[in-house]
Amino acid sequence: MLVPAAVDIYYGNSDWAVFAISALATGGLAIATAIATHSQRPVLTTRFAFLVVTVLWATLGVVGALPFYAASLKLDFASAVFESVSAITTTGSTVIVGLDHAPPGILMWRSVLQWIGGIGVIALGLFLLPILKVGGFSYLRIESSDIEDKPFSRLNSLSQALLAIYLGLTILCAIAYSAAGMRLFDAVNHAMTTIATGGFSTHDASFGYYDGYAVRWVGTVFMLLAALPFSILIVITLRGRLDAGRDPQIRLFASYVTAFVLVIALERSIRADVPFPEALTAAAFNFVSIISTAGFASEDYTTWGSLAVMLAFLATFVGGCSGSTAGGIKAYRFLIMGRMLQNGFHMLIYPDAVRSLSYGNRVVDAEMQRSVVLFMVSFLAVWAFSSTALAANGLDLVTSLTASLTALTNVGPGLGPVVGPAGNFSSLSDFAKWVLTVTMLLGRLEILAVLVLLTPSFWR
Amino acid sequence: MLVPAAVDIYYGNSDWAVFAISALATGGLAIATAIATHSQRPVLTTRFAFLVVTVLWATLGVVGALPFYAASLKLDFASAVFESVSAITTTGSTVIVGLDHAPPGILMWRSVLQWIGGIGVIALGLFLLPILKVGGFSYLRIESSDIEDKPFSRLNSLSQALLAIYLGLTILCAIAYSAAGMRLFDAVNHAMTTIATGGFSTHDASFGYYDGYAVRWVGTVFMLLAALPFSILIVITLRGRLDAGRDPQIRLFASYVTAFVLVIALERSIRADVPFPEALTAAAFNFVSIISTAGFASEDYTTWGSLAVMLAFLATFVGGCSGSTAGGIKAYRFLIMGRMLQNGFHMLIYPDAVRSLSYGNRVVDAEMQRSVVLFMVSFLAVWAFSSTALAANGLDLVTSLTASLTALTNVGPGLGPVVGPAGNFSSLSDFAKWVLTVTMLLGRLEILAVLVLLTPSFWR
Repeated sequence: MLVPAAVDIYYGNSDWAVFAISALATGGLAIATAIATHSQRPVLTTRFAFLVVTVLWATLGVVGALPFYAASLKLDFASAVFESVSAITTTGSTVIVGLDHAPPGILMWRSVLQWIGGIGVIALGLFLLPILKVGGFSYLRIESSDIEDKPFSRLNSLSQALLAIYLGLTILCAIAYSAAGMRLFDAVNHAMTTIATGGFSTHDASFGYYDGYAVRWVGTVFMLLAALPFSILIVITLRGRLDAGRDPQIRLFASYVTAFVLVIALERSIRADVPFPEALTAAAFNFVSIISTAGFASEDYTTWGSLAVMLAFLATFVGGCSGSTAGGIKAYRFLIMGRMLQNGFHMLIYPDAVRSLSYGNRVVDAEMQRSVVLFMVSFLAVWAFSSTALAANGLDLVTSLTASLTALTNVGPGLGPVVGPAGNFSSLSDFAKWVLTVTMLLGRLEILAVLVLLTPSFWR
Repeated sequence: MLVPAAVDIYYGNSDWAVFAISALATGGLAIATAIATHSQRPVLTTRFAFLVVTVLWATLGVVGALPFYAASLKLDFASAVFESVSAITTTGSTVIVGLDHAPPGILMWRSVLQWIGGIGVIALGLFLLPILKVGGFSYLRIESSDIEDKPFSRLNSLSQALLAIYLGLTILCAIAYSAAGMRLFDAVNHAMTTIATGGFSTHDASFGYYDGYAVRWVGTVFMLLAALPFSILIVITLRGRLDAGRDPQIRLFASYVTAFVLVIALERSIRADVPFPEALTAAAFNFVSIISTAGFASEDYTTWGSLAVMLAFLATFVGGCSGSTAGGIKAYRFLIMGRMLQNGFHMLIYPDAVRSLSYGNRVVDAEMQRSVVLFMVSFLAVWAFSSTALAANGLDLVTSLTASLTALTNVGPGLGPVVGPAGNFSSLSDFAKWVLTVTMLLGRLEILAVLVLLTPSFWR
């Protein structure tokens, strides 16, 4: 909070006091909690981990909302929490109208929250969730494929490497945005929200504010990088092991990104006579933005025809790689489901054939398969539940289905005039905002980490 | 085909000749095939069963289309096959406009095809698909729960009982419809398409053509009966074993039907001030129609507000019980998925706890669980694929998503002006009709029985 406070002081905006007071209050609370509990070492159980993760993200959501609530912007409480949770879950749906004239401190605070949320999510996905069996793959992957040279025997060095790469990518991205024509403040903000695949912009028109291809391609490249498994980025960067890029997850991710972008670009250039470079740039930026779950938009792609709308809908599900800042179902789950299909069909013909399920050169055990199925069923159930709540609140079918979906996959925009890429979530009722707030948290914590708290087994 | 021929002769319609010639041609072909192959006993393998089921349904679809193509109605080939496949899969989407003035032979042919499709599907679901591990449960269930008295030791007696009940229910339903005010021709036709949960009507307005509650409640009751497992209907009817109704699948089916109907009825009577008996009758008829996958409509329920539209969308997925004429995901799969969720969450807390997955007093083995997962993943994949094909053909998001969904679950109506309960599939392009035709066949054969033919394992 001291960063936006400094920014507001620099630009002479009175909101600096709000940030300073929020910082004092939050800092005081944190110190009080630390002092009150410092003598007790926590019992590190699975239960405790689930509880801490959920409580941590929920607390961060409420604390992050303080400045939105108190600042000159005067958001109501539901909107302030929505905006804050949208930030820390790196979703990027916004309820603030008039970003172009919003105080710089608030804009910076949104970006900082997303950036913190992004690194938090990577840390969760690499270190905690795979151990809890509710998602992720990459940390295990490093452990096994590099078992000979054990490059990161201690968590500490891996954390430092992760932070270095995350920070390094952000700085590189900011420099590239600057070079492509953004002013410094915008470049820094967009760099933070790009690497977090968050999608908050400093303009209502998002990337539509900027002209030219350069800014769009810089965004596309860095969104793609941010959707890759950070464990593999670490191996590539720090050890020069380019072969680590031949990860099955990365291959699948690259394939479906290419397929979506090419189909849209070709369809638009053939059917709508848009010049191919223009069609390709727009398709790449907007669809990489959806698939990486950033959620920027450079134009309203829902006007591109029915195929583009359908593909934007489907792209909202898929997501990036595990161990990244991206949300959604994620490439490794599709890989595992694909292998389950292959094996399943094979066993319809040869019921006695026992085939192990492979992922690259590893075997996917029954526990991992169960975790994927558990996730998928929970995903569909939460989506249906959340959509029905929104429909009961009076939102139409497309708005209900896509608002809840985009919240659950942490993408950002949905479809339709209200929650689409040209819309804004501000007109939703408080009830709808709370539903979406909870859905974003569920999606960000891979659903299972939150839902497990609601089972009797957990509290027994 | 001789039935509609007789009907057309009785009503003095020239189409009788078309039916007679079609009957001769089909009969000739069948006899020729029988003679050509009578000396070879088929090798009864799993592969052969999959192939026969798919080829049989596809052949029935093409043969059934002959009268639609050749009769005075003059449907084009794509439309004729669509209508025929919609009939034999008991889907009930229609491309014929002006049913009220259509020749009686054609109307009867549509009903007969659905009726035949219905009993075919029950036979598949009870005898074949469970053995092939791609769906169904009920035949196995009889085997185990009545293991002591073995009431149907031979397939033959079970088939005869099934046919008797199917025929008996149809006759009862026709009598009830007559008593409720339908003229005889309509009563017979609607009885056949009700027990088949098909949904073809003899009027463009479907059940909206009739006044009063009686016809609607008769329809509701018989649609519910037809969506129950026929194996259990057999046990109840022939052996007076009412306790067989305490099947977990039936309980779940009853629960979700009640939930959907009550929520809609209450919402409409409270929010829209519709008198409760009227709201309840309309909600019961139209939502039982969707959930049982019949697909009749007594009014355009998509005008009931956003919650009703969302619930109609969700109801299109769920379906009835296995071993019935209903399509959709079906109650037993939800039961098994629910138990998988329970166990999965339990194991997140107690990773070493091994709990078997129970269904009533039986254990669901790993094979059955794998089959459910295989079905669900294939279901979603086919739905996405089929929707994208329709969107590429220019249909909007809601039309594409719901037309393919209603085809895949064999319900009948989708949502939106074209494929909704007040619309008609006739305006779709030939391409869209073929996509939906294939999707209906896939849905009817529990998807896996068709998709397995496309795998390399099958042909090796």
